Amino acid sequence: MSSNFPVDIIVSKNVTACVIVIGNEILSGRTQDLNVAYIGKRCDEIGIRLMHTRIIPDLEETIITTVNECRMLFDYVFTSGGIGPTHDDITSASIARAFNKELIRSAEAVALLDNYYEAGKLTEARLKMADVPQDSILIDNPVSAAPGFQLENVFVMAGVPVIMQAMFEAIVERLSGGEAMLMTSIATNLGESALASELSKIQDAFSDVSIGSYPFFKQGKLGVNLVMRCTDESRLALLQKDIKLMIEKLGGEVID
Amino acid sequence: MSSNFPVDIIVSKNVTACVIVIGNEILSGRTQDLNVAYIGKRCDEIGIRLMHTRIIPDLEETIITTVNECRMLFDYVFTSGGIGPTHDDITSASIARAFNKELIRSAEAVALLDNYYEAGKLTEARLKMADVPQDSILIDNPVSAAPGFQLENVFVMAGVPVIMQAMFEAIVERLSGGEAMLMTSIATNLGESALASELSKIQDAFSDVSIGSYPFFKQGKLGVNLVMRCTDESRLALLQKDIKLMIEKLGGEVID
Repeated sequence: MSSNFPVDIIVSKNVTACVIVIGNEILSGRTQDLNVAYIGKRCDEIGIRLMHTRIIPDLEETIITTVNECRMLFDYVFTSGGIGPTHDDITSASIARAFNKELIRSAEAVALLDNYYEAGKLTEARLKMADVPQDSILIDNPVSAAPGFQLENVFVMAGVPVIMQAMFEAIVERLSGGEAMLMTSIATNLGESALASELSKIQDAFSDVSIGSYPFFKQGKLGVNLVMRCTDESRLALLQKDIKLMIEKLGGEVID
Repeated sequence: MSSNFPVDIIVSKNVTACVIVIGNEILSGRTQDLNVAYIGKRCDEIGIRLMHTRIIPDLEETIITTVNECRMLFDYVFTSGGIGPTHDDITSASIARAFNKELIRSAEAVALLDNYYEAGKLTEARLKMADVPQDSILIDNPVSAAPGFQLENVFVMAGVPVIMQAMFEAIVERLSGGEAMLMTSIATNLGESALASELSKIQDAFSDVSIGSYPFFKQGKLGVNLVMRCTDESRLALLQKDIKLMIEKLGGEVID
């Protein structure tokens, strides 16, 4: 079969994701969020595009509205925070309400907690961490046993980064990504304004690569990090060469 | 005039805010956002409640939709990122479109840039940073001159934290906050589950204080930070006393 299109063009829908960080402590600035960056990096690696993030307070109606909006807009929704045993941990109950599901005590989760705690230490407060919306699939927590859960395309995880990361690694096999996003960067001592015009031309020639330009201050001097993202390694290599030539042409230097 | 209400109850509407972080580099995890935490802390201090944050990519339609949604929902919207001179800096043009305003070259901004750069160095790329939506009020940039801008309740600032922070301090006097949110915290070696039940009772008795419970791992040991937020210093002092008594009663210790 003949075609006017080159055979190597495969039109594939991007797989998209959204992160919802739930917690007053992030909005108040008391705690620095680290989960968005972790999930963003891992999504790139497994071929999922993190397109959107929301940080919201521990308010039931806000959690319900946000989860219901985002799960319609993105292929995957990852939440972090609010699944512990205290009064301010309202994520599980709110998500049950968002899905119109009962919040039930999962026998499987109780068994996990029972196995983790010494005899007699599985208090009612701890048992609260076994409450998940009906029809949830549990997410393994190798750090402290209390599981997260998946309901349709929503993955509900802990807020503590070390636990969130372990949970994310536990669900990776459930996620279907596309091509991995490859990233490379070149730093230069040129300012953004000096390279803006030439860089724009290069971007036009490489429309399949996303080129970001990020100024920095280092030892009192201004410079720019040029970050290139693309799924095709050979295109990235070609682009790197062009960018280095551009820097040289503009009288700048590539720096480490 | 007599009243059934105690005279010291003043019903005041909370002043609310939303942060919109604009930048692929934050979503990809290449750059760790620091602006949300900074703005959150400062908002607490000046009596504004940071209720919501979105992190979105450098996509025109997404910027327009997000800004238009958020500026209707919150008293103040603070954006960070995308106002530099390169091809990926599309925030100013997108926000002009969101407000149905022309993007104009501000004479005032040109003068600021002209004053900052050496003679002959004010290139077309740099002049792009003087383009703002019609009717904007500029935001001073004491670090590198190129200004941000305010349009109605939307404050458009740089992404680089040191510049964003300087711009935020430059707009503080334009913001009308309510009572400052005071915050104090107590750390204990008790686990969350051990104190969940008693803490819940205390929260019920102090409905005017938001108590957050945040587990941590420190030198291999689990503990909890209890964070109390309230606008009334005397209530916070009272609550601190009760929390310390609770920790003692439960056989735990207050730790630094």
